[in-house]
Amino acid sequence: MTHYAAPVRDMQFLLHEVLQISRFSNLPGFADASVDVIDAILEEGAKLAGEVLHPINHSGDREGCRRHPDGSVTTPKGFREAYAAYRQGGWQGLGADPEWGGQGLPYVVGVAVSEMLSAANMAFAMYPGLARGAASTIEAHGTPEQKRFYLPKMIAGEWGGTMNLTEPHCGTDLGLLRAKAVRQADGTYLVSGQKIFISAGEHDLTSNIIHLVLARIEGAPEGVKGISLFIVPKFHINSDGTLGRRNGVSCGKIEEKMGIHANSTCVMNYDEATGYLLGEENKGLKAMFTMMNEARLGVALQGLAVSEVAYQNAASYARDRLQGRSLTGPKNPGKPADPIIVHPDVRRMLMDQRATIEGGRAWMYSAALQADMHRRSSSESDRQKADDYLGLMTPVLKAYLTEKGYWQASNAQQVLGGHGYITEWGMEQFVRDARIAMIYEGANGIQALDLVGRKLMKDGGRAWTTWFADIDGFIAESAGVAGLAPFLDGLASAKSDLGEAIAWLGGNAMSNFDNAGAASMDLLHLFALVALAEGWARMAKVAIEKRGEDPFYDNKLTTGRYFLERILPDAKSHLAKLKSGAGAMMALPAEAF
Amino acid sequence: MTHYAAPVRDMQFLLHEVLQISRFSNLPGFADASVDVIDAILEEGAKLAGEVLHPINHSGDREGCRRHPDGSVTTPKGFREAYAAYRQGGWQGLGADPEWGGQGLPYVVGVAVSEMLSAANMAFAMYPGLARGAASTIEAHGTPEQKRFYLPKMIAGEWGGTMNLTEPHCGTDLGLLRAKAVRQADGTYLVSGQKIFISAGEHDLTSNIIHLVLARIEGAPEGVKGISLFIVPKFHINSDGTLGRRNGVSCGKIEEKMGIHANSTCVMNYDEATGYLLGEENKGLKAMFTMMNEARLGVALQGLAVSEVAYQNAASYARDRLQGRSLTGPKNPGKPADPIIVHPDVRRMLMDQRATIEGGRAWMYSAALQADMHRRSSSESDRQKADDYLGLMTPVLKAYLTEKGYWQASNAQQVLGGHGYITEWGMEQFVRDARIAMIYEGANGIQALDLVGRKLMKDGGRAWTTWFADIDGFIAESAGVAGLAPFLDGLASAKSDLGEAIAWLGGNAMSNFDNAGAASMDLLHLFALVALAEGWARMAKVAIEKRGEDPFYDNKLTTGRYFLERILPDAKSHLAKLKSGAGAMMALPAEAF
Repeated sequence: MTHYAAPVRDMQFLLHEVLQISRFSNLPGFADASVDVIDAILEEGAKLAGEVLHPINHSGDREGCRRHPDGSVTTPKGFREAYAAYRQGGWQGLGADPEWGGQGLPYVVGVAVSEMLSAANMAFAMYPGLARGAASTIEAHGTPEQKRFYLPKMIAGEWGGTMNLTEPHCGTDLGLLRAKAVRQADGTYLVSGQKIFISAGEHDLTSNIIHLVLARIEGAPEGVKGISLFIVPKFHINSDGTLGRRNGVSCGKIEEKMGIHANSTCVMNYDEATGYLLGEENKGLKAMFTMMNEARLGVALQGLAVSEVAYQNAASYARDRLQGRSLTGPKNPGKPADPIIVHPDVRRMLMDQRATIEGGRAWMYSAALQADMHRRSSSESDRQKADDYLGLMTPVLKAYLTEKGYWQASNAQQVLGGHGYITEWGMEQFVRDARIAMIYEGANGIQALDLVGRKLMKDGGRAWTTWFADIDGFIAESAGVAGLAPFLDGLASAKSDLGEAIAWLGGNAMSNFDNAGAASMDLLHLFALVALAEGWARMAKVAIEKRGEDPFYDNKLTTGRYFLERILPDAKSHLAKLKSGAGAMMALPAEAF
Repeated sequence: MTHYAAPVRDMQFLLHEVLQISRFSNLPGFADASVDVIDAILEEGAKLAGEVLHPINHSGDREGCRRHPDGSVTTPKGFREAYAAYRQGGWQGLGADPEWGGQGLPYVVGVAVSEMLSAANMAFAMYPGLARGAASTIEAHGTPEQKRFYLPKMIAGEWGGTMNLTEPHCGTDLGLLRAKAVRQADGTYLVSGQKIFISAGEHDLTSNIIHLVLARIEGAPEGVKGISLFIVPKFHINSDGTLGRRNGVSCGKIEEKMGIHANSTCVMNYDEATGYLLGEENKGLKAMFTMMNEARLGVALQGLAVSEVAYQNAASYARDRLQGRSLTGPKNPGKPADPIIVHPDVRRMLMDQRATIEGGRAWMYSAALQADMHRRSSSESDRQKADDYLGLMTPVLKAYLTEKGYWQASNAQQVLGGHGYITEWGMEQFVRDARIAMIYEGANGIQALDLVGRKLMKDGGRAWTTWFADIDGFIAESAGVAGLAPFLDGLASAKSDLGEAIAWLGGNAMSNFDNAGAASMDLLHLFALVALAEGWARMAKVAIEKRGEDPFYDNKLTTGRYFLERILPDAKSHLAKLKSGAGAMMALPAEAF
């Protein structure tokens, strides 16, 4: 009933015209990513997404995953075939190192493809997404043997992967975790404990699943300083790479949940499972952060992706559904009513979606290019700058794009009126699926705390001051572009609001740390609005240059103007709220709640 | 797993201390509503809600309604017994006219009870709620015979009721409707057609169901001027009041939908069903508006109610769940972690919920008292003023409280982190249930259009100018109250923003009607923020008088301060957006979407 056509033109606009990634052909992998290669990848990805993955999105939600008495899990009808197509297409290795069988293409191109997969079928895309994250973690922290042993199969899509952090009594506060690991004479460990909310924990898509598991080695210190990370394969692996007997890990239950029914969210029981230390003892959390940061960007992208597919379906409905007449006179005089897209409040919802999605995409892809710089640049200072930007923006991207993705999916549902609430129309699934993204990989409040507590003043605030200087440079060099002034003014104004917020924190957070916590979510929104304003200004600059060639550019400028007029004004309200401090927020005694 | 304790103290505060309904003992029915009587009703209602209705809320969602091959519908386990308890308790007749067997108590007291029922079990509360609406419509527009025939049974809860407007091709635009009625020699009509989205359309709670159905009499004009309203009972009724044979109406299907699974949302097929004209020929829409306006207030209340029950469960979780440490040092040093209520961003979510709910309740109950004035006052000018206020505020209450109710239910879900997404914890049901309230009884965009298009300038803007004058009077008479200044300043400032918005519309809407449509939702939010600021100021005035007696009053003032600091600042941003007009919103060609 729903449809999805990947927004290839918009992706090309960002990759080729705004980010101009061909400028970076000196980076490893970028030389192979010519315009033609990228366009071919986007077209093929769009086919996979639209023709293979989206058609099983709704049925996958209805059917869900099934756990059998032996602990095995069956994914919904069509998932195995779709996964086979994904694997055979080599999609899992798109951005991976050629040393392990990957194609080494830019991460930013992989992000565009990931957006398509998540939009088409979020529950499906999580299976390979988690495997990619696990592979990256092994690549970053594994021994050479571990890399040789696991990466080729994972990058080929033959083996899956998961991350195992949460336990029933601890999610955010990992210092409380109890899973334990007992060292064996041969250097391996026996891992025991229960993990919950493990996405893709068990399924039938791959022949093996490589679990990354946080646990505490016997005798390790309490708290987060005593946590280590382990590789625990579902099946033991023989030295020749073939699979051996089952390891001591099993799925005890699939959680029933609000959405993403086609992804198995498992309770995983580890019962003296053989595990292999990944990275250093007691430094597991640091290693897991590799996976978490990548996963957080992936979740940000889910927010963007699900709102895109919801938008597309709302837009089609609004163009087709005849109901009422335009306030300015019939637009469809031969028919009994006008299409509802003539109504301003329907437009408002659609334009809110567009402006958020298109701006969010510009910001997200720009951050992804920084991830490429961080990994691939030969310049130490470029790498550091990219690392600073990503560290600062990862929590902002995650929290903002998932929150807005959810609300925009809900706006898209609203466009359909009563039909939006009915299962068979498919819109309510987008809302239910999108809802998890605000919660997992660190609930959004945790992202805000990460921003204000760890990232903002790290290295004396180097990340944001450098970014501010970049923005100032852009504004200065663009000042003469006719028609760009509203975008530059909007950007400067939002940046000034954010600067005022940071200054307020400088004066008020040290005297009362709760002022920092109380400010955190509004601060995060201010960062996001500046980043979106920057993205829109950069897009507008290109669109102004090229307008006339294609209505695409005029439409882009119109949507950008909508952003300036209808979304950016929230900056002032975030600033006002933030400056009210923690007083009223924290004053009630706990028992009054 | 979830719990609900009706907020009786808060309801008493509003009814006895803020609204002081004992002042209105000259109104019919109010003299019987002494403080003791009201308190007894609230306590009994709280028991019914907490002990009978809430325990079957989650199981009702899981089980849903079942339609059998013969078209009959079974409600979930426990619903029949709960409904019997409701009926036997006389709750259906609480506010109904004693002439028909009701207790004639104030509507505002009934609203408090309805809030409890909807919070405890929204899907359940819809069955009697729709029957009340149908009874009100018969009372307002029926002949004396029709009233005698239907009202006693409906008010006793023996018969249910529904409203039938929507058809597959028309929801909002009723002018398109096709259901037809053919006049018979005996003065009855044969009604035929299909209606969709009929809440409580078929069920097993009552022995008969009185459907109110919009249809077009053969030969009637096209459009909304040719629509009539009919009473179509499920079972024919003999002249002695006993039930006869089945009428030609049946449930063809139960819709699968996002939430309110325990309420049967039916496709209703009318096949030459015998119908009785209600009100005048071709004036059915006007008659149906009696039911719709009452239903819109009921839906506003659902938004409030579901966010209240979600809040209560989020607050308990936040007090109990140990995770992390306070930013200002351990608050629970003997335990491995502090309860998460110590974290400012958790507080932010809970306080957003409280401030919205408590302010919304003050506004809602105050509007309900105006409904009593409108129906019961002997003063023509009081009745007119009340009617003006209700006409103006009904769309605002409906759209604002349902939107914020949904958001706050989602915030409550967020407090639980991963558990919020898991079915068995019950939070995600609140979100799914709350979602429909933004859609039905006129999608929220339609409410905004009703406000700007019909209500704002009706009678030269008498409704809002009178309300503004009331607010000015309140501010003037309260100016000397120590500690009240921030509330009066906040109210004056928001009112000034709203005034500026109305002035902007005065200058820009006539030249381009799309400017009115484009402004409508922000205007609605501005109205709501002023109404909430008024509610908070009136509550604060009472709380300041009584503080010291009970921490309740200090807590109320703190929550009010939070409203001023953290919610009211949105007024400026709504004003800025509104004044940007329809330009960017309407500029894209439809094919660009």
